[in-house]
Amino acid sequence: MASIGVIGGTGALGKAIARRLAKGGHDVTIGSRSAESAQAAAEEIGAAGGATNDDAARDKDVVIVTVPYSAHAGTFAQIKDAVGNAIVVDTTVPLVPPKVMRVQLPAAGSAAVEAQGYLAEGARLVSAFHSVAAHKLIHDEKIDCDVLVFSDDVEARGVVVGLCGDMELRGLSGGALVNSAAAEALTSILIYMNKTYGADGAGVRFTGLTKAPPIQ
Amino acid sequence: MASIGVIGGTGALGKAIARRLAKGGHDVTIGSRSAESAQAAAEEIGAAGGATNDDAARDKDVVIVTVPYSAHAGTFAQIKDAVGNAIVVDTTVPLVPPKVMRVQLPAAGSAAVEAQGYLAEGARLVSAFHSVAAHKLIHDEKIDCDVLVFSDDVEARGVVVGLCGDMELRGLSGGALVNSAAAEALTSILIYMNKTYGADGAGVRFTGLTKAPPIQ
Repeated sequence: MASIGVIGGTGALGKAIARRLAKGGHDVTIGSRSAESAQAAAEEIGAAGGATNDDAARDKDVVIVTVPYSAHAGTFAQIKDAVGNAIVVDTTVPLVPPKVMRVQLPAAGSAAVEAQGYLAEGARLVSAFHSVAAHKLIHDEKIDCDVLVFSDDVEARGVVVGLCGDMELRGLSGGALVNSAAAEALTSILIYMNKTYGADGAGVRFTGLTKAPPIQ
Repeated sequence: MASIGVIGGTGALGKAIARRLAKGGHDVTIGSRSAESAQAAAEEIGAAGGATNDDAARDKDVVIVTVPYSAHAGTFAQIKDAVGNAIVVDTTVPLVPPKVMRVQLPAAGSAAVEAQGYLAEGARLVSAFHSVAAHKLIHDEKIDCDVLVFSDDVEARGVVVGLCGDMELRGLSGGALVNSAAAEALTSILIYMNKTYGADGAGVRFTGLTKAPPIQ
Protein backbone atom coordinates (compact mmCIF):
# COMPACT_ATOMS: atom_id res chain seq x y z
CA MET A 1 0.00 0.00 0.00
CA ALA A 2 1.35 3.38 -1.00
CA SER A 3 0.41 6.82 0.35
CA ILE A 4 -0.70 8.81 -2.68
CA GLY A 5 -1.71 12.45 -3.12
CA VAL A 6 -3.80 13.37 -6.17
CA ILE A 7 -3.35 17.05 -6.95
CA GLY A 8 -6.33 18.60 -8.71
CA GLY A 9 -8.18 15.53 -7.52
CA THR A 10 -11.64 17.08 -7.69
CA GLY A 11 -11.38 17.25 -11.50
CA ALA A 12 -12.69 14.46 -13.73
CA LEU A 13 -9.39 12.67 -14.31
CA GLY A 14 -8.04 13.18 -10.78
CA LYS A 15 -11.17 11.88 -9.13
CA ALA A 16 -11.27 8.86 -11.44
CA ILE A 17 -7.62 8.01 -10.76
CA ALA A 18 -8.08 8.50 -7.02
CA ARG A 19 -11.12 6.22 -6.98
CA ARG A 20 -9.33 3.37 -8.76
CA LEU A 21 -6.26 3.70 -6.55
CA ALA A 22 -8.36 3.73 -3.36
CA LYS A 23 -10.29 0.70 -4.58
CA GLY A 24 -6.93 -0.94 -5.29
CA GLY A 25 -6.05 -0.62 -1.59
CA HIS A 26 -3.94 2.53 -1.53
CA ASP A 27 -4.07 5.35 1.03
CA VAL A 28 -5.26 8.21 -1.19
CA THR A 29 -5.50 11.89 -0.30
CA ILE A 30 -7.35 14.13 -2.73
CA GLY A 31 -5.87 17.59 -3.13
CA SER A 32 -7.71 20.69 -4.31
CA ARG A 33 -7.48 24.45 -3.94
CA SER A 34 -10.27 24.11 -1.38
CA ALA A 35 -9.83 21.55 1.42
CA GLU A 36 -13.62 21.35 1.76
CA SER A 37 -14.11 20.42 -1.91
CA ALA A 38 -11.30 17.89 -1.58
CA GLN A 39 -12.91 16.34 1.48
CA ALA A 40 -16.27 16.08 -0.26
CA ALA A 41 -14.70 14.40 -3.31
CA ALA A 42 -12.80 12.00 -1.05
CA GLU A 43 -16.03 10.92 0.63
CA GLU A 44 -17.73 10.54 -2.74
CA ILE A 45 -15.18 8.11 -4.13
CA GLY A 46 -13.91 6.38 -0.99
CA ALA A 47 -10.50 8.02 -0.64
CA ALA A 48 -8.90 8.32 2.80
CA GLY A 49 -9.12 12.10 2.96
CA GLY A 50 -9.02 15.51 1.31
CA ALA A 51 -6.72 18.50 1.77
CA THR A 52 -5.30 21.53 0.01
CA ASN A 53 -3.00 20.66 -2.91
CA ASP A 54 0.01 21.70 -0.87
CA ASP A 55 -0.91 19.45 2.06
CA ALA A 56 -1.90 16.57 -0.23
CA ALA A 57 1.57 16.68 -1.81
CA ARG A 58 3.42 16.42 1.54
CA ASP A 59 4.86 13.19 3.02
CA LYS A 60 3.61 10.95 0.24
CA ASP A 61 5.16 8.02 -1.61
CA VAL A 62 3.56 9.16 -4.85
CA VAL A 63 2.07 12.51 -5.90
CA ILE A 64 -0.08 12.54 -9.05
CA VAL A 65 -0.71 15.87 -10.78
CA THR A 66 -4.02 16.07 -12.69
CA VAL A 67 -4.60 19.67 -13.74
CA PRO A 68 -5.39 21.38 -17.05
CA TYR A 69 -2.39 22.63 -18.99
CA SER A 70 -3.28 26.23 -18.12
CA ALA A 71 -2.58 25.39 -14.44
CA HIS A 72 0.50 23.23 -15.13
CA ALA A 73 3.36 25.59 -14.30
CA GLY A 74 1.55 27.17 -11.35
CA THR A 75 0.66 23.84 -9.76
CA PHE A 76 4.20 22.49 -10.01
CA ALA A 77 5.55 25.72 -8.47
CA GLN A 78 3.10 25.26 -5.61
CA ILE A 79 4.00 21.65 -4.76
CA LYS A 80 7.71 21.76 -5.64
CA ASP A 81 8.94 21.90 -2.05
CA ALA A 82 6.23 19.68 -0.54
CA VAL A 83 6.89 16.62 -2.72
CA GLY A 84 10.39 16.00 -1.36
CA ASN A 85 11.58 12.60 -2.56
CA ALA A 86 8.15 11.34 -3.64
CA ILE A 87 7.58 9.94 -7.12
CA VAL A 88 5.75 12.72 -8.98
CA VAL A 89 3.44 11.62 -11.80
CA ASP A 90 2.47 14.23 -14.38
CA THR A 91 -0.67 13.45 -16.37
CA THR A 92 -0.84 16.78 -18.17
CA VAL A 93 -1.64 16.96 -21.88
CA PRO A 94 -0.64 20.29 -23.46
CA LEU A 95 -3.94 20.91 -25.24
CA VAL A 96 -4.53 24.43 -26.56
CA PRO A 97 -8.30 25.07 -26.56
CA PRO A 98 -10.33 25.43 -28.63
CA LYS A 99 -8.24 23.41 -31.13
CA VAL A 100 -7.86 20.30 -28.97
CA MET A 101 -7.88 17.94 -31.99
CA ARG A 102 -4.68 19.58 -33.21
CA VAL A 103 -1.27 18.50 -31.86
CA GLN A 104 0.40 21.60 -30.40
CA LEU A 105 3.34 20.44 -28.32
CA PRO A 106 5.25 23.13 -26.38
CA ALA A 107 8.68 24.31 -27.48
CA ALA A 108 10.31 22.16 -24.79
CA GLY A 109 8.90 19.13 -26.65
CA SER A 110 6.39 17.97 -24.05
CA ALA A 111 4.58 19.00 -20.88
CA ALA A 112 6.59 16.32 -19.05
CA VAL A 113 9.91 17.91 -19.96
CA GLU A 114 8.51 21.26 -18.86
CA ALA A 115 7.49 19.72 -15.52
CA GLN A 116 11.00 18.40 -15.01
CA GLY A 117 12.21 21.98 -15.26
CA TYR A 118 9.69 23.10 -12.64
CA LEU A 119 10.83 20.57 -10.02
CA ALA A 120 14.03 20.49 -7.97
CA GLU A 121 17.05 18.76 -9.46
CA GLY A 122 16.95 15.03 -8.85
CA ALA A 123 13.14 14.94 -8.55
CA ARG A 124 11.64 11.57 -9.47
CA LEU A 125 9.31 12.54 -12.31
CA VAL A 126 7.11 10.09 -14.24
CA SER A 127 4.66 10.92 -17.02
CA ALA A 128 1.55 8.75 -17.49
CA PHE A 129 -2.26 8.46 -17.84
CA HIS A 130 -2.57 10.79 -20.86
CA SER A 131 -4.83 8.66 -23.00
CA VAL A 132 -7.36 7.04 -20.68
CA ALA A 133 -10.88 8.45 -20.75
CA ALA A 134 -11.77 9.86 -17.31
CA HIS A 135 -15.49 9.18 -17.79
CA LYS A 136 -14.71 5.49 -18.16
CA LEU A 137 -12.10 5.33 -15.40
CA ILE A 138 -14.62 6.70 -12.88
CA HIS A 139 -16.68 3.51 -13.27
CA ASP A 140 -15.69 -0.12 -12.87
CA GLU A 141 -15.90 -0.85 -16.59
CA LYS A 142 -13.02 -2.45 -18.46
CA ILE A 143 -10.75 0.15 -20.12
CA ASP A 144 -9.67 -0.95 -23.60
CA CYS A 145 -6.60 1.29 -23.59
CA ASP A 146 -2.98 0.80 -22.54
CA VAL A 147 -1.35 3.40 -20.28
CA LEU A 148 2.08 4.55 -21.44
CA VAL A 149 4.51 5.36 -18.62
CA PHE A 150 7.65 7.43 -19.18
CA SER A 151 10.55 8.31 -16.89
CA ASP A 152 14.31 8.57 -16.74
CA ASP A 153 14.04 6.94 -13.27
CA VAL A 154 13.64 3.25 -14.06
CA GLU A 155 12.53 2.30 -10.54
CA ALA A 156 9.90 5.06 -10.41
CA ARG A 157 8.63 3.99 -13.83
CA GLY A 158 8.21 0.45 -12.55
CA VAL A 159 6.26 1.66 -9.51
CA VAL A 160 3.78 3.53 -11.73
CA VAL A 161 3.40 0.55 -14.09
CA GLY A 162 2.53 -1.41 -10.96
CA LEU A 163 -0.04 1.18 -9.86
CA CYS A 164 -1.71 0.81 -13.27
CA GLY A 165 -2.15 -2.88 -12.54
CA ASP A 166 -3.76 -2.05 -9.17
CA MET A 167 -6.18 0.17 -11.11
CA GLU A 168 -7.07 -2.68 -13.50
CA LEU A 169 -5.24 -0.99 -16.34
CA ARG A 170 -2.36 -2.29 -18.41
CA GLY A 171 0.61 0.00 -17.89
CA LEU A 172 3.48 -0.20 -20.38
CA SER A 173 6.84 1.47 -20.14
CA GLY A 174 7.37 3.83 -23.06
CA GLY A 175 10.98 4.63 -22.20
CA ALA A 176 12.62 7.95 -21.37
CA LEU A 177 10.71 10.97 -20.07
CA VAL A 178 11.27 12.82 -23.35
CA ASN A 179 9.19 10.12 -25.07
CA SER A 180 6.13 11.49 -23.29
CA ALA A 181 5.71 13.68 -26.40
CA ALA A 182 4.26 10.63 -28.16
CA ALA A 183 1.49 10.04 -25.61
CA GLU A 184 0.73 13.74 -25.23
CA ALA A 185 0.40 14.14 -29.01
CA LEU A 186 -1.63 10.95 -29.29
CA THR A 187 -4.31 12.41 -27.03
CA SER A 188 -5.29 14.94 -29.71
CA ILE A 189 -5.57 12.07 -32.21
CA LEU A 190 -7.88 10.19 -29.84
CA ILE A 191 -10.08 13.28 -29.39
CA TYR A 192 -10.19 13.60 -33.19
CA MET A 193 -11.13 9.93 -33.53
CA ASN A 194 -13.93 10.26 -30.98
CA LYS A 195 -15.55 12.75 -33.32
CA THR A 196 -14.57 11.20 -36.66
CA TYR A 197 -15.14 7.53 -35.91
CA GLY A 198 -18.00 7.67 -33.42
CA ALA A 199 -16.06 6.64 -30.34
CA ASP A 200 -17.08 7.23 -26.75
CA GLY A 201 -13.49 7.43 -25.53
CA ALA A 202 -11.21 6.00 -28.25
CA GLY A 203 -8.23 4.08 -26.88
CA VAL A 204 -4.99 2.56 -28.03
CA ARG A 205 -3.54 -0.93 -27.59
CA PHE A 206 -0.02 -2.08 -28.36
CA THR A 207 0.27 -5.36 -30.23
CA GLY A 208 2.88 -8.06 -30.70
CA LEU A 209 4.42 -7.72 -27.22
CA THR A 210 5.39 -11.16 -25.95
CA LYS A 211 6.78 -10.08 -22.58
CA ALA A 212 4.35 -7.35 -21.53
CA PRO A 213 1.93 -7.43 -18.58
CA PRO A 214 -1.36 -9.12 -19.57
CA ILE A 215 -4.32 -7.03 -20.75
CA GLN A 216 -6.67 -6.55 -17.79
CA MET B 1 -6.15 1.64 -60.39
CA ALA B 2 -3.78 4.47 -59.62
CA SER B 3 -0.36 5.19 -61.12
CA ILE B 4 2.01 5.31 -58.16
CA GLY B 5 5.72 6.14 -57.89
CA VAL B 6 7.60 4.91 -54.82
CA ILE B 7 10.65 7.09 -54.23
CA GLY B 8 13.48 5.28 -52.46
CA GLY B 9 11.63 2.15 -53.44
CA THR B 10 14.64 -0.17 -53.25
CA GLY B 11 14.77 0.32 -49.46
CA ALA B 12 13.01 -2.04 -47.04
CA LEU B 13 9.88 0.08 -46.47
CA GLY B 14 9.59 1.31 -50.05
CA LYS B 15 9.88 -2.15 -51.56
CA ALA B 16 7.34 -3.54 -49.09
CA ILE B 17 4.83 -0.77 -49.83
CA ALA B 18 5.37 -1.12 -53.60
CA ARG B 19 4.80 -4.87 -53.42
CA ARG B 20 1.49 -4.56 -51.55
CA LEU B 21 0.27 -1.81 -53.88
CA ALA B 22 1.19 -3.79 -56.99
CA LYS B 23 -0.51 -6.85 -55.56
CA GLY B 24 -3.56 -4.66 -54.89
CA GLY B 25 -3.79 -3.90 -58.60
CA HIS B 26 -2.01 -0.56 -58.89
CA ASP B 27 0.44 0.53 -61.57
CA VAL B 28 3.60 0.94 -59.47
CA THR B 29 6.93 2.42 -60.54
CA ILE B 30 9.86 1.97 -58.18
CA GLY B 31 12.22 4.93 -57.99
CA SER B 32 15.86 4.83 -56.92
CA ARG B 33 19.05 6.79 -57.48
CA SER B 34 19.97 4.04 -59.94
CA ALA B 35 17.45 3.09 -62.62
CA GLU B 36 19.05 -0.37 -62.83
CA SER B 37 18.56 -1.06 -59.11
CA ALA B 38 14.99 0.22 -59.38
CA GLN B 39 14.30 -2.08 -62.33
CA ALA B 40 15.71 -5.09 -60.48
CA ALA B 41 13.58 -4.34 -57.39
CA ALA B 42 10.50 -3.89 -59.58
CA GLU B 43 11.03 -7.34 -61.12
CA GLU B 44 11.59 -8.86 -57.69
CA ILE B 45 8.29 -7.68 -56.23
CA GLY B 46 6.08 -7.54 -59.32
CA ALA B 47 5.90 -3.78 -59.87
CA ALA B 48 5.29 -2.39 -63.36
CA GLY B 49 8.74 -0.82 -63.71
CA GLY B 50 11.74 0.96 -62.25
CA ALA B 51 13.27 4.37 -62.92
CA THR B 52 15.31 7.13 -61.33
CA ASN B 53 13.53 8.91 -58.46
CA ASP B 54 12.95 11.94 -60.63
CA ASP B 55 11.31 9.91 -63.41
CA ALA B 56 9.34 7.79 -60.95
CA ALA B 57 7.82 10.98 -59.49
CA ARG B 58 6.62 12.31 -62.86
CA ASP B 59 3.04 12.00 -64.24
CA LYS B 60 1.74 9.96 -61.30
CA ASP B 61 -1.51 10.04 -59.35
CA VAL B 62 0.36 9.33 -56.12
CA VAL B 63 4.06 9.66 -55.20
CA ILE B 64 5.20 7.93 -52.00
CA VAL B 65 8.48 9.03 -50.42
CA THR B 66 10.29 6.32 -48.43
CA VAL B 67 13.76 7.56 -47.54
CA PRO B 68 15.73 7.83 -44.30
CA TYR B 69 15.48 11.17 -42.51
CA SER B 70 19.03 12.02 -43.54
CA ALA B 71 17.85 12.06 -47.19
CA HIS B 72 14.51 13.78 -46.48
CA ALA B 73 15.23 17.38 -47.52
CA GLY B 74 17.38 16.37 -50.49
CA THR B 75 14.82 13.95 -51.88
CA PHE B 76 11.96 16.44 -51.68
CA ALA B 77 14.12 19.07 -53.40
CA GLN B 78 14.79 16.56 -56.16
CA ILE B 79 11.16 15.60 -56.84
CA LYS B 80 9.52 18.97 -56.10
CA ASP B 81 8.94 19.93 -59.71
CA ALA B 82 8.24 16.44 -61.03
CA VAL B 83 5.29 15.68 -58.72
CA GLY B 84 3.04 18.40 -60.17
CA ASN B 85 -0.47 17.90 -58.81
CA ALA B 86 0.08 14.34 -57.59
CA ILE B 87 -0.78 13.35 -54.02
CA VAL B 88 2.60 13.14 -52.25
CA VAL B 89 2.80 10.73 -49.31
CA ASP B 90 5.65 11.24 -46.84
CA THR B 91 6.51 8.20 -44.70
CA THR B 92 9.58 9.72 -43.09
CA VAL B 93 10.22 9.29 -39.37
CA PRO B 94 12.73 11.82 -37.99
CA LEU B 95 14.89 9.30 -36.15
CA VAL B 96 18.29 10.51 -34.99
CA PRO B 97 20.64 7.48 -34.91
CA PRO B 98 21.97 5.97 -32.79
CA LYS B 99 19.28 6.99 -30.25
CA VAL B 100 16.31 5.75 -32.27
CA MET B 101 14.35 4.75 -29.14
CA ARG B 102 14.29 8.41 -28.10
CA VAL B 103 11.70 10.83 -29.49
CA GLN B 104 13.59 13.69 -31.15
CA LEU B 105 11.12 15.62 -33.26
CA PRO B 106 12.52 18.46 -35.38
CA ALA B 107 11.98 22.11 -34.44
CA ALA B 108 9.22 22.39 -37.06
CA GLY B 109 7.29 19.82 -35.03
CA SER B 110 7.37 16.93 -37.49
CA ALA B 111 9.03 15.67 -40.65
CA ALA B 112 5.68 16.08 -42.40
CA VAL B 113 5.53 19.81 -41.67
CA GLU B 114 9.12 20.11 -42.89
CA ALA B 115 8.13 18.31 -46.11
CA GLN B 116 5.29 20.75 -46.66
CA GLY B 117 7.88 23.52 -46.65
CA TYR B 118 9.98 21.69 -49.24
CA LEU B 119 7.12 21.37 -51.75
CA ALA B 120 5.49 24.04 -53.88
CA GLU B 121 2.58 25.98 -52.41
CA GLY B 122 -0.67 24.09 -52.82
CA ALA B 123 1.05 20.68 -53.02
CA ARG B 124 -1.19 17.82 -51.87
CA LEU B 125 0.84 16.37 -49.03
CA VAL B 126 -0.20 13.37 -46.92
CA SER B 127 1.77 11.74 -44.10
CA ALA B 128 1.34 8.00 -43.43
CA PHE B 129 2.90 4.53 -42.94
CA HIS B 130 5.19 5.50 -40.04
CA SER B 131 4.46 2.62 -37.73
CA VAL B 132 4.16 -0.48 -39.90
CA ALA B 133 7.07 -2.91 -39.80
CA ALA B 134 8.62 -3.21 -43.28
CA HIS B 135 9.82 -6.78 -42.66
CA LYS B 136 6.19 -7.81 -42.13
CA LEU B 137 4.74 -5.73 -44.95
CA ILE B 138 7.06 -7.41 -47.46
CA HIS B 139 5.24 -10.73 -46.84
CA ASP B 140 1.56 -11.58 -47.08
CA GLU B 141 1.12 -11.94 -43.34
CA LYS B 142 -1.58 -10.06 -41.46
CA ILE B 143 -0.31 -6.77 -40.00
CA ASP B 144 -1.68 -6.16 -36.51
CA CYS B 145 -1.18 -2.40 -36.72
CA ASP B 146 -3.35 0.50 -37.86
CA VAL B 147 -1.91 3.05 -40.29
CA LEU B 148 -2.48 6.67 -39.28
CA VAL B 149 -3.01 9.04 -42.22
CA PHE B 150 -2.66 12.82 -41.85
CA SER B 151 -3.33 15.68 -44.27
CA ASP B 152 -4.89 19.10 -44.54
CA ASP B 153 -6.30 17.92 -47.91
CA VAL B 154 -9.34 15.87 -46.94
CA GLU B 155 -9.75 14.28 -50.38
CA ALA B 156 -6.09 13.25 -50.57
CA ARG B 157 -6.31 11.80 -47.06
CA GLY B 158 -9.26 9.69 -48.14
CA VAL B 159 -7.37 8.40 -51.18
CA VAL B 160 -4.49 7.21 -48.99
CA VAL B 161 -6.86 5.59 -46.46
CA GLY B 162 -8.26 3.73 -49.47
CA LEU B 163 -4.79 2.64 -50.62
CA CYS B 164 -4.22 1.16 -47.15
CA GLY B 165 -7.27 -1.02 -47.67
CA ASP B 166 -5.89 -2.18 -51.03
CA MET B 167 -2.73 -3.19 -49.15
CA GLU B 168 -4.75 -5.21 -46.59
CA LEU B 169 -4.05 -2.65 -43.90
CA ARG B 170 -6.51 -0.63 -41.85
CA GLY B 171 -5.90 3.05 -42.56
CA LEU B 172 -7.37 5.60 -40.16
CA SER B 173 -7.49 9.34 -40.58
CA GLY B 174 -5.57 11.07 -37.80
CA GLY B 175 -6.59 14.58 -38.81
CA ALA B 176 -4.48 17.56 -39.83
CA LEU B 177 -0.96 17.23 -41.23
CA VAL B 178 0.50 18.77 -38.08
CA ASN B 179 -0.84 15.75 -36.15
CA SER B 180 1.76 13.61 -37.91
CA ALA B 181 3.97 14.43 -34.91
CA ALA B 182 2.03 11.80 -32.95
CA ALA B 183 2.76 8.95 -35.38
CA GLU B 184 6.36 10.02 -35.92
CA ALA B 185 6.98 10.11 -32.16
CA LEU B 186 5.14 6.83 -31.68
CA THR B 187 7.63 5.06 -33.91
CA SER B 188 10.40 5.50 -31.33
CA ILE B 189 8.08 4.04 -28.69
CA LEU B 190 7.45 1.00 -30.90
CA ILE B 191 11.19 0.49 -31.42
CA TYR B 192 11.65 0.74 -27.64
CA MET B 193 8.88 -1.81 -27.10
CA ASN B 194 10.41 -4.23 -29.57
CA LYS B 195 13.43 -4.37 -27.31
CA THR B 196 11.70 -4.08 -23.93
CA TYR B 197 8.73 -6.37 -24.49
CA GLY B 198 10.13 -8.95 -26.88
CA ALA B 199 8.22 -7.87 -29.97
CA ASP B 200 9.11 -8.66 -33.57
CA GLY B 201 7.54 -5.46 -34.88
CA ALA B 202 5.29 -4.00 -32.18
CA GLY B 203 2.16 -2.35 -33.54
CA VAL B 204 -0.69 -0.17 -32.42
CA ARG B 205 -4.46 -0.56 -32.71
CA PHE B 206 -7.11 2.03 -31.99
CA THR B 207 -10.09 0.83 -29.96
CA GLY B 208 -13.68 1.88 -29.43
CA LEU B 209 -14.23 3.21 -32.97
CA THR B 210 -17.76 2.39 -34.09
CA LYS B 211 -17.56 3.97 -37.56
CA ALA B 212 -14.01 3.05 -38.67
CA PRO B 213 -13.04 0.75 -41.54
CA PRO B 214 -12.92 -2.90 -40.37
CA ILE B 215 -9.66 -4.45 -39.21
CA GLN B 216 -8.21 -6.43 -42.12
